[in-house]
Amino acid sequence: MTKEGTFLWGGRFERKPDAETVAFSTSIGEDYRLYPFDILGSIAHCMMLERVGIISQQEREELCDGLRSIYRELQEGKIDFTPFEDIHSLVEHRLRELKGQVADKLHTARSRNDQIVLDERLYLREMIAVVIEKIITLQERILEQARAYPDLVMPGFTHFQPAQPVLYAYHMMAYFYMLERDIERFWDSLKRVNVLPLGAGALAGTSLPIDREYVASLLAFPKVQENGMDAVSDRDFILEFLFDLLSLFVHLSRLSEELVVWSSPLFGFIEMDEALTTGSSIMPQKKNPDLAELLRGKCGEFLGALVSLAATLKGLPLAYNRDLQQDKKPLFRSAEEALSSLDIAAKLVAGMRPLPQNMEQALKKGFLTATDLAEFLVEKGVPFRKAHHLVGRIVRKMLEEGRELTSLRAEDLGEYASLFEETLKERLDEQKSPLFKKSLGSTAPDEVRRQVVQAEINLEQWKKSLEKLKEEWKTSFEKLLFFKE
Amino acid sequence: MTKEGTFLWGGRFERKPDAETVAFSTSIGEDYRLYPFDILGSIAHCMMLERVGIISQQEREELCDGLRSIYRELQEGKIDFTPFEDIHSLVEHRLRELKGQVADKLHTARSRNDQIVLDERLYLREMIAVVIEKIITLQERILEQARAYPDLVMPGFTHFQPAQPVLYAYHMMAYFYMLERDIERFWDSLKRVNVLPLGAGALAGTSLPIDREYVASLLAFPKVQENGMDAVSDRDFILEFLFDLLSLFVHLSRLSEELVVWSSPLFGFIEMDEALTTGSSIMPQKKNPDLAELLRGKCGEFLGALVSLAATLKGLPLAYNRDLQQDKKPLFRSAEEALSSLDIAAKLVAGMRPLPQNMEQALKKGFLTATDLAEFLVEKGVPFRKAHHLVGRIVRKMLEEGRELTSLRAEDLGEYASLFEETLKERLDEQKSPLFKKSLGSTAPDEVRRQVVQAEINLEQWKKSLEKLKEEWKTSFEKLLFFKE
Amino acid sequence: MTKEGTFLWGGRFERKPDAETVAFSTSIGEDYRLYPFDILGSIAHCMMLERVGIISQQEREELCDGLRSIYRELQEGKIDFTPFEDIHSLVEHRLRELKGQVADKLHTARSRNDQIVLDERLYLREMIAVVIEKIITLQERILEQARAYPDLVMPGFTHFQPAQPVLYAYHMMAYFYMLERDIERFWDSLKRVNVLPLGAGALAGTSLPIDREYVASLLAFPKVQENGMDAVSDRDFILEFLFDLLSLFVHLSRLSEELVVWSSPLFGFIEMDEALTTGSSIMPQKKNPDLAELLRGKCGEFLGALVSLAATLKGLPLAYNRDLQQDKKPLFRSAEEALSSLDIAAKLVAGMRPLPQNMEQALKKGFLTATDLAEFLVEKGVPFRKAHHLVGRIVRKMLEEGRELTSLRAEDLGEYASLFEETLKERLDEQKSPLFKKSLGSTAPDEVRRQVVQAEINLEQWKKSLEKLKEEWKTSFEKLLFFKE
Amino acid sequence: MTKEGTFLWGGRFERKPDAETVAFSTSIGEDYRLYPFDILGSIAHCMMLERVGIISQQEREELCDGLRSIYRELQEGKIDFTPFEDIHSLVEHRLRELKGQVADKLHTARSRNDQIVLDERLYLREMIAVVIEKIITLQERILEQARAYPDLVMPGFTHFQPAQPVLYAYHMMAYFYMLERDIERFWDSLKRVNVLPLGAGALAGTSLPIDREYVASLLAFPKVQENGMDAVSDRDFILEFLFDLLSLFVHLSRLSEELVVWSSPLFGFIEMDEALTTGSSIMPQKKNPDLAELLRGKCGEFLGALVSLAATLKGLPLAYNRDLQQDKKPLFRSAEEALSSLDIAAKLVAGMRPLPQNMEQALKKGFLTATDLAEFLVEKGVPFRKAHHLVGRIVRKMLEEGRELTSLRAEDLGEYASLFEETLKERLDEQKSPLFKKSLGSTAPDEVRRQVVQAEINLEQWKKSLEKLKEEWKTSFEKLLFFKE
Repeated sequence: MTKEGTFLWGGRFERKPDAETVAFSTSIGEDYRLYPFDILGSIAHCMMLERVGIISQQEREELCDGLRSIYRELQEGKIDFTPFEDIHSLVEHRLRELKGQVADKLHTARSRNDQIVLDERLYLREMIAVVIEKIITLQERILEQARAYPDLVMPGFTHFQPAQPVLYAYHMMAYFYMLERDIERFWDSLKRVNVLPLGAGALAGTSLPIDREYVASLLAFPKVQENGMDAVSDRDFILEFLFDLLSLFVHLSRLSEELVVWSSPLFGFIEMDEALTTGSSIMPQKKNPDLAELLRGKCGEFLGALVSLAATLKGLPLAYNRDLQQDKKPLFRSAEEALSSLDIAAKLVAGMRPLPQNMEQALKKGFLTATDLAEFLVEKGVPFRKAHHLVGRIVRKMLEEGRELTSLRAEDLGEYASLFEETLKERLDEQKSPLFKKSLGSTAPDEVRRQVVQAEINLEQWKKSLEKLKEEWKTSFEKLLFFKE
Repeated sequence: MTKEGTFLWGGRFERKPDAETVAFSTSIGEDYRLYPFDILGSIAHCMMLERVGIISQQEREELCDGLRSIYRELQEGKIDFTPFEDIHSLVEHRLRELKGQVADKLHTARSRNDQIVLDERLYLREMIAVVIEKIITLQERILEQARAYPDLVMPGFTHFQPAQPVLYAYHMMAYFYMLERDIERFWDSLKRVNVLPLGAGALAGTSLPIDREYVASLLAFPKVQENGMDAVSDRDFILEFLFDLLSLFVHLSRLSEELVVWSSPLFGFIEMDEALTTGSSIMPQKKNPDLAELLRGKCGEFLGALVSLAATLKGLPLAYNRDLQQDKKPLFRSAEEALSSLDIAAKLVAGMRPLPQNMEQALKKGFLTATDLAEFLVEKGVPFRKAHHLVGRIVRKMLEEGRELTSLRAEDLGEYASLFEETLKERLDEQKSPLFKKSLGSTAPDEVRRQVVQAEINLEQWKKSLEKLKEEWKTSFEKLLFFKE
Repeated sequence: MTKEGTFLWGGRFERKPDAETVAFSTSIGEDYRLYPFDILGSIAHCMMLERVGIISQQEREELCDGLRSIYRELQEGKIDFTPFEDIHSLVEHRLRELKGQVADKLHTARSRNDQIVLDERLYLREMIAVVIEKIITLQERILEQARAYPDLVMPGFTHFQPAQPVLYAYHMMAYFYMLERDIERFWDSLKRVNVLPLGAGALAGTSLPIDREYVASLLAFPKVQENGMDAVSDRDFILEFLFDLLSLFVHLSRLSEELVVWSSPLFGFIEMDEALTTGSSIMPQKKNPDLAELLRGKCGEFLGALVSLAATLKGLPLAYNRDLQQDKKPLFRSAEEALSSLDIAAKLVAGMRPLPQNMEQALKKGFLTATDLAEFLVEKGVPFRKAHHLVGRIVRKMLEEGRELTSLRAEDLGEYASLFEETLKERLDEQKSPLFKKSLGSTAPDEVRRQVVQAEINLEQWKKSLEKLKEEWKTSFEKLLFFKE
Repeated sequence: MTKEGTFLWGGRFERKPDAETVAFSTSIGEDYRLYPFDILGSIAHCMMLERVGIISQQEREELCDGLRSIYRELQEGKIDFTPFEDIHSLVEHRLRELKGQVADKLHTARSRNDQIVLDERLYLREMIAVVIEKIITLQERILEQARAYPDLVMPGFTHFQPAQPVLYAYHMMAYFYMLERDIERFWDSLKRVNVLPLGAGALAGTSLPIDREYVASLLAFPKVQENGMDAVSDRDFILEFLFDLLSLFVHLSRLSEELVVWSSPLFGFIEMDEALTTGSSIMPQKKNPDLAELLRGKCGEFLGALVSLAATLKGLPLAYNRDLQQDKKPLFRSAEEALSSLDIAAKLVAGMRPLPQNMEQALKKGFLTATDLAEFLVEKGVPFRKAHHLVGRIVRKMLEEGRELTSLRAEDLGEYASLFEETLKERLDEQKSPLFKKSLGSTAPDEVRRQVVQAEINLEQWKKSLEKLKEEWKTSFEKLLFFKE
């Protein structure tokens, strides 16, 4: 620190940061994942710089050629990340090694502040597409279960107690619809992710005559972010992604809970694929649902990630503040955790094998067709509340007499004895109860079949939309990465 | 407990709950807010029951007449909520008082489980509309500021340090765009809120021939929830609402932080409407920004609400569990808090008066046009990195000599002295720097004006869409509530 | 707004806040609960002001007399809270009505900033004492269960699967110890709550010769907060309370989960007091554990409260900021929720009745004494891993042959046949397995009995310590409130 | 899957898990950090097994020798972690390679369930000691600042507005006390961390005659966990650690916020060590407080970690569930993040250099000694509220006349003109105001000096207590690791 001066407002300059403080502030350990996007963004930026005349054709060619080489080197694992503070400095440093002085022009008319959000947006939109694909796969596994056991009856629970007979396929379809809402949410969020921030500069835009719309078209962004100060301060798109993951993993935690419960010997509703359980050397019959338990536990992690970023963003003044670097851990860790967890979830569902006898036995634990009897009476004109009370009395009496509802006789109906029909026995049979359901969205087998067919149609739509989007991205990236002059 | 029996699985019955445990499980203290929706839902349900022949025309007329009377009584504050466990039992109880036995038919083919989510969805979709309206009002206040001070220059900050000159209007517009994303998110969520759950019964649907699509049309729901088990277990729509509020209040916390900072005497960028600050009897000149501080603090409350519900939902097996009653506090408290906070936010923005001299003074704290000089050199062909270093050297030199950038002379540019132009002085003047910005989304006055015009167009669109939706709801509700037979 | 001036830094004065903004910033809706503490603090403050000669004896008498009257009026519900912004202004306003001008001296040498934290600390330390008492009551209910069923055997679970036979009393005692840690934490926190902040003034202390240690002694505070700036900015004590509640309710959520599971017909391990369950008119045998479910759900609320306050405190500069007012909702709501939830928890535990036959049946679901057999072999010198594998083979073979472990014969042990002992049958009997456990902290009946006795001793200690503390507070408060001059 | 059977309850066996599911459930990527503790625990366990006669002296010697070799190999980085599922299987596997069949005895009378919590407790108690040490270092840096600038006056803020003159040292000491409470909390938590779980077995204890108290003494645990089921289910100690970190980082976020604000040119109260700021090539005078911003942001991470674990624990039935493996990421990541962040915090404080002129200038922004004047009047007998209003009037008048409080003349006091004293000028001088403060805990220089001296005494106490604890641990570990037979 030889030369030292004092600023107008009293501060002095200048000294080099020491190793430890550098380590504290580096992000390469997280943001190395962004390299393809950093390079793509730089190539598109160079092409625009040429187009508007800020760099020459030759300069652009050299820069793009260098960037493509670095991409290949990184793909092949030839560059050591560790000495660099972040992915941008790695790329810029290597470019200077490869191409010399022209590298000094790469950063023209942009700033780290807009560059980093560009990289994150490119990364995230792809991540969202992959997450959607994996949700679709999970949904397909659910549909397979629903189709494989179209008539299997199990107890539907309320308050963790058997309440009414439902189809296993119907119960499965409940998860299908939860996941469909998740896909919708991720898809909606793309509107807000898929927007070009580059060109915002540090916060104020630039006096150079850049063409942001051209960059957007090269990178397949349908929109340009309209205000530069917003562009560099905004991390909404990550927060929304974390919430969408949270919602997804709330659903998966509910599914996992049921897998854990159902596969417990005390329920025995399903057995899980042995490859997905953990045994004990001493109790080989014990098949612990470790993967389902872990999946259930992941939900906490996603909630933590969302809280972490929200608390970081709260109260930050505009525009860029370094606190924003704290977006990377929740983003990357959550995205990657989500992918592997979705794979496991799909395997878990694929590996379920229902055990009908145990379901059947559980259906006997408590007059599950009492509602069916009440609805029969209502059909015959008995007011709902009266029907309910009558059935309540009948159930209590049968309980004392050790009878089941299928043993119902005309005299049990008391003043309504005349309403008794022989076919009632069938209707009160837990195995047949679903057949009598009539409402849209009910557990009637025909209705569930309709749900499955509709679900298949929906999935095809989602797949098509997704394919189109990915195709578009791929085309634009291939042009940028592999185009030869 | 005189009569006592034992169930097959070993449990006994029956005893009445005591007062304290009843108090613990009642929700009337929260869900009284739902009464209009509970009654609307019941009227629609009755009309459907008649249509499919489950009740007679006369029964329907009596039930609807009773329900409309209860609505009026509640509107006029004539019914004491406190003795009831929840809003459903209040309505049902009063209906029996008014209309006698026919009330026993009201609950036909539905359950508390689908009724409560119907009420919540009707409540929430209206709440979302109101929230959007209030965001629009806030955005209009922001636009007023932007229009009122189109040319006012202030320092744009990074790392809480003056970085580049920007327009006050530009800074304001950053908040406009954040809020526009919030509106988008609320709007997108309506798709998932605005779906009819009624008809799901307790969890399995019903064997009575109900017509859910007719109920949906009466209540202006574009869609029916497809799976009954999902319908009664799903609280996604509330979780998503809480997240959308969180995102909104992260934005408002950032705005509030800036109001607090800017109105501090050490910045003095704005003065706030005195009616919105709190004085001290002893230091009358001290105008504490209490409202802005409270608004900043609210963000924590919304984060807490989201966490609370997410943790409650995690790992719940299907279908209904009483834990779900815990959705009400976060829902109602957050919704109401949001409305009053948005009102305050709009007032705070409307009450801002910029203090140009202080902004001007702050613009002098640090060579804020250094980037402009660098970009000038880049235009002249100097590579970006080289330009940056050169400017860095110039700034340091000027610092030592106590000069400002506007004093730049040709010789300061060293080897690039020939590039010097007299007009540079203007470009380096902090007050004029924005005029030279050229990029889309930059702080150039023309560009900001364009943003404002575009923003006005967007707002009109949102208002129209919202109006249409509300009109639709209103029409259907008026039919249900005031239709005379 | 007739008279208007401009401040040095550019701001103007002065205008009155409108009704809506006042409503937004009032806290009386929450802090009315603090009135006893606000008055106690004021009385102690007056007594000190006299002692150091700032007010006269007569003034002190008048002030204290007025404050005591207000206390009685508030106790009797004679004052309407609603017109006031907060509890301090209510008291001060009423004091002026009662005693005239002398009221102007009450606020000498203190500030709202130190007064509000004094009130909160007085409130909270009592709340902590009540919470501890209620935890003790819950622990007593647990001990009653443990004593009532000292020999009852049930399956102990890992991964929600029966793993080894344990005593019901042993399982209960696990909750005793969790709760004991909670008491410890609350007790430890008192050190940090029970500290006098008054005298910090707005933030800098005062030039008046106050005697803080005297005030501390009057209010039974063992310590004075050492730094005034810390005193008015610190909300740690509330955050710690919220965490201690969170930990407590994580424990109660685990207990509730087990109550829900155990009382499900598919487990049938316990029946719950019917008064604590909710029936269904139509399925009278279904006893829904609504209270346990609600208790399980509360945990989310406490987590939300903690998150809310932590996010509010994050990044606040010193000293007082109005955001701190946001401490009240989480504090008061959580404290009150905790009290009623603890009452319910105690009732739920008191109302548990184990159903031994169902436990016995579940003990048969899977070779639960396999570990006992392995440990027998280890005793005889077989290496642990080898013993484990051997037992694994035996279990698998028995499974195929449809046998149970109690049918073990010498030949089943293969190469270790010679180790067979006739008494092994007893050891492998699930009902007797606990008798053979030897380790400290194990499920052996003698060991569990020891745990119960030790637990009773601990409880007595806690009760004594608590009684002493409360006595001390009561004495000092009675002196302040009822002392007649 | 050649041989396949069916269990009594309907499930089948047996298949191997595939690679992907293994990857999902491994924890070695996190728990490799536990190796020293895992080995220490195993050595102590072996010594106990010999002592109670379960293994022979020779077996114990071989096992301990093997374990010590593995420790050295791990220390030297000679073992590749990656192929193992967790640290326990690594150690056991290597032990078998080194020592053959005797390794089969290592796991006698223990289970993974009690072993993992033993490892975590040994790790955590050391981590807590290190965290306390680093807090002490940070406190020493704070004391250095307080001692270096004992008389420097700065504005104390409320609502982010200058309120009263305070000493810089006084402001610093506020942070000292916050941190002291943090130390207290960590220290209190040791009581609950420093307890031996080993011997709980899988959940029920063991029938082998183990001596848990001997193991506790070998590992320097003052207490044995009393109930085995609690021992394997309990993760309170981690949750409490995460909360204690959260509280610490709430404090550090407030400190960082002030560093960011104070080092902004608009405040200019301090300059930060240049080595701890980040410059810009183009604006060399801009010294961005990146490290302070990052430190501020970390608070969100700790809040997220706490939420993550709390949500995971909520509602888990006893005893062990695999969800508990999710404790590792928040534990390890938070602990390590805390250490490096505390180092940075200490550097940031050490690197602060106050800039007195800027503080002085800010002291002029608003009649900061108005309270001093009011207190003077109170001393002279003017009632507080009256004094306040009078001063308010005076300030307003001076404002209009462009005067400062030091210009006060007798006539300004109006009816109280006679109270005027010439020395008042001094008292109203912002630089001298602190000298007149009298209360304990105030900003009076003597009082702050007393605080500093007391603080030094406290720190010495903490250091001694910590040293004693660490010595005890070290002694016991050295005996276990390096004792030669």
